[in-house]
Amino acid sequence: MAQFVNQRDTIVLEAVDGLVRSSGGRLARLDGYPHIKVVVRADWQRDRVAMVSGGGSGHEPSHAGFVGRGMLTAAVCGDIFASPSVDAVLSGILAVTGDAGCLLIVKNYTGDRLNFGLAAERARALGKRVSMVIVGDDIALPDLPQPRGVAGTLFVHKIAGAVAEQGGDLAEVTQAAERVIAGMRSIGMSLDTCTVPGSEREQRIPEGMAELGLGIHGEPGVEQVAFTGAHGAIASVIDKLAPTLAAGPQVVLLNNLGGTSALEMSVLANELATSAIAGRISHIVGPAAVMTALDMRGFSVSAMPATAENLAALHFPVATPAWPGISSVGPVAVQSVPQLVPPVAVAVSDNPAVRRLVVAACEALIAAAPDLNALDAKSGDGDTGSTLALAARALLGAVDTLPLDDTPALLAAIGRMLGTTMGGSSGILLAIYFSAAADAAASGENVADALRAGLARMQQVGGAQPGGRTMIDALAPALAALEDGIAAAARAAFVGAQRTATMTRASSGRAAYVGAAQLAGHVDPGAEAVARVFAALAK
Amino acid sequence: MAQFVNQRDTIVLEAVDGLVRSSGGRLARLDGYPHIKVVVRADWQRDRVAMVSGGGSGHEPSHAGFVGRGMLTAAVCGDIFASPSVDAVLSGILAVTGDAGCLLIVKNYTGDRLNFGLAAERARALGKRVSMVIVGDDIALPDLPQPRGVAGTLFVHKIAGAVAEQGGDLAEVTQAAERVIAGMRSIGMSLDTCTVPGSEREQRIPEGMAELGLGIHGEPGVEQVAFTGAHGAIASVIDKLAPTLAAGPQVVLLNNLGGTSALEMSVLANELATSAIAGRISHIVGPAAVMTALDMRGFSVSAMPATAENLAALHFPVATPAWPGISSVGPVAVQSVPQLVPPVAVAVSDNPAVRRLVVAACEALIAAAPDLNALDAKSGDGDTGSTLALAARALLGAVDTLPLDDTPALLAAIGRMLGTTMGGSSGILLAIYFSAAADAAASGENVADALRAGLARMQQVGGAQPGGRTMIDALAPALAALEDGIAAAARAAFVGAQRTATMTRASSGRAAYVGAAQLAGHVDPGAEAVARVFAALAK
Repeated sequence: MAQFVNQRDTIVLEAVDGLVRSSGGRLARLDGYPHIKVVVRADWQRDRVAMVSGGGSGHEPSHAGFVGRGMLTAAVCGDIFASPSVDAVLSGILAVTGDAGCLLIVKNYTGDRLNFGLAAERARALGKRVSMVIVGDDIALPDLPQPRGVAGTLFVHKIAGAVAEQGGDLAEVTQAAERVIAGMRSIGMSLDTCTVPGSEREQRIPEGMAELGLGIHGEPGVEQVAFTGAHGAIASVIDKLAPTLAAGPQVVLLNNLGGTSALEMSVLANELATSAIAGRISHIVGPAAVMTALDMRGFSVSAMPATAENLAALHFPVATPAWPGISSVGPVAVQSVPQLVPPVAVAVSDNPAVRRLVVAACEALIAAAPDLNALDAKSGDGDTGSTLALAARALLGAVDTLPLDDTPALLAAIGRMLGTTMGGSSGILLAIYFSAAADAAASGENVADALRAGLARMQQVGGAQPGGRTMIDALAPALAALEDGIAAAARAAFVGAQRTATMTRASSGRAAYVGAAQLAGHVDPGAEAVARVFAALAK
Repeated sequence: MAQFVNQRDTIVLEAVDGLVRSSGGRLARLDGYPHIKVVVRADWQRDRVAMVSGGGSGHEPSHAGFVGRGMLTAAVCGDIFASPSVDAVLSGILAVTGDAGCLLIVKNYTGDRLNFGLAAERARALGKRVSMVIVGDDIALPDLPQPRGVAGTLFVHKIAGAVAEQGGDLAEVTQAAERVIAGMRSIGMSLDTCTVPGSEREQRIPEGMAELGLGIHGEPGVEQVAFTGAHGAIASVIDKLAPTLAAGPQVVLLNNLGGTSALEMSVLANELATSAIAGRISHIVGPAAVMTALDMRGFSVSAMPATAENLAALHFPVATPAWPGISSVGPVAVQSVPQLVPPVAVAVSDNPAVRRLVVAACEALIAAAPDLNALDAKSGDGDTGSTLALAARALLGAVDTLPLDDTPALLAAIGRMLGTTMGGSSGILLAIYFSAAADAAASGENVADALRAGLARMQQVGGAQPGGRTMIDALAPALAALEDGIAAAARAAFVGAQRTATMTRASSGRAAYVGAAQLAGHVDPGAEAVARVFAALAK
């Protein structure tokens, strides 16, 4: 699987530079490429406890994306899935540690423990006050003496970061981190492995299966389980997680391991909020990608006690765009659907002259149906005539219920009828045409101006222009000629319709996909329909 | 490809519910399932211009994720890649539109134009003031009369949203939207198609190729181009985009189409910030997934003029976690790497008794190398003896440069030497041990207590406990017995080392992966090394 990277060796360097460049000056990096890849807060004054984390790359936005006011002071980035060196970690510590000291937050992997551990010793030998906590929130193997550190690490960054930002001393910050670590649990599930740049993707998980209890480096999960959908996925995860949770309400972090779509993550959030532990979930962080395994199509759930202390720290404002915020979880708030039609009925009225026009137009369309269908068959699916005839019949049948003596109301009524009796784009466009004309007529414009206002709105919504081989090519000249009488309008419509036979590039509708040779010599069926209606009206 | 969803028909319903449930009460939805899927601001007072957008689903977080103070008032969600119905749009408009009116923001697709257009007419007929803008920012086909609406839509939401939130009237809000639409351009590139739930994924893009100029529904790109990496990808995109840009500095939006990893997005951000138009990019939104095509492994770049007016609106605070914020783009800020070693040299000193101990320990380790290698071969790679001997020879060779008469300085010097001359985890752990002991000695503890402090630190960092079949099983009892003299310590070390032969489950190191049968009866090489050293010291 190709990826948007360049050389394997420079991926992390380039990614760090991309992050720093687009940070608005919030971030800087140490001048130690390629071996020392450390991102630091550019505004850091060494006046509080420094928070340093890091580890192998490939977990973006962790950890460099969480460097900023209220979270990390520095992130030490190793190569992809490889621990940074002692010198890199030590550089990070020394770059940011002032008199208040430094907390190292280390995920529980041997390489990270050792390299961060020795760097801490070196920093102490240089006179720095350094404490170190080890995050091991993964419950995949319940009796493992050294559980892995996974997405729960974000809770540590956020909560200890809030304590540090508010001026807590090293003991207080360390204690906050240790309290969080003691109370949190995580587990993940995936439908696929991840693509390590430069390596072939391992095809380990068979179709129909998912891996439960996996880490964040593409390593196999503890078990493969049958995959039955989002509901079953959350149920399996909660099954493992529930017995391990501390007492009381919980904050959950729903983490995207990298390749799960936002749509799926929302479906998973819904499952989580209605799962067996729904009653215990008071708050949620995400769904969001905070601790990824490159492009892994999976997710993880982390949980910790929603104590007042933890919630206050999780709500504390930060300057890190990657932190997705925290929200309370509640039932689906539902509002009633508004009344869509006016509650009062239209007053029926008669006007013999208008009635004659309506009937003539409808009868003309019904009569034209075979011809219009034949024209449409040249460029479309051959149903323009039938569709218009159907609407015309419906209008004819309802003519006694129309407000024939009230032009704005009549135009509006025709618009409503076409919107419901006529299918396809044309029905909606004609409904828009008559509705907008009704609007204009209601605000006092004469009929010709109102109809032109309808045309303008139809063009805005539909996007077609004169010359685009649509009904507009007959309608626009007809309406323009209306000042000179209905006969002039009918002539203009006829000429306009004929001209569409010379238009060999349609701008919209299905004919847009048809070649010029097929269109040449044939009149557009919509324009022809308009011409027939105006001819009938002129009689 | 399996996905974290349940039934095809309920995906959007569940995703909307997941979003609403986890919104902390910020969002509600209309009670119109399954046909009417409308997300609204729960705190909306109808006291400003309402902002309504929407369209087919599958573009999450667009558009429901952008409902909130400062952006959208309502989002009307269709099924996946399908326009919502007229009734759904009308419900959304009526639910949120007060006297100030409503702006509809519609991406340029026929279905959306028509359904939103007719809904607007209906709302007007019901007395609502509604204006509508159509977003067509895609430049893939430069002479297309109706370009598609893609990720630039977010600029419209954000900027018109800021004007609306600040009390702008309908004309001002509409004008802001139209100004943004007129000035922005977008284009995308992808390495793969997307997985539409319930459909087979189309395998259209051959290995080594990418599609340029694609939409957000998995439709084919305008051309397939050879894929040469992130640098070439951005170059191709910028090649198309640059000639279309308005004058002056630009804000770019770097959008993840769904399946691109965060690591790749940062690499792309770096390429963008150093591209042919780098000098014209003053600000960036993202990289972030704001307008996705489900799980498509691709990205898009949108650009618009970075005028003071646009920047102010883009910086205006919002309550929508999906909005990634805006940052200025600058060069990589670089800070120098701190000095890692103390600038002053250690004062050399002699102490014949101490010198004898150091020499004896080193010689014992060199002599023990073959035995230790043989023991290690039972459970590891057979190099424990060689590794320790190498470090011992280095220490012997440097004995004349050591501060032999200054215990804290000596322990620190040994720690530093082991950290650089000895490879692997053991070297780092011993470095930590001596460094921590040096620290303790420097703060006034006696040698035995200092060595025990070193042990505690090594255990914290390495995670091993007594009984775990490591060097600690000899070292811990030896240090405990040190009060009774070196001979007692040596005896305790010997007994402890022997006991490791009965420990059949290693807690850390490579032996953790070896079965009980292979371990039984063999002493741990690390513990044996400790026993040999103490035996030599006791002589």
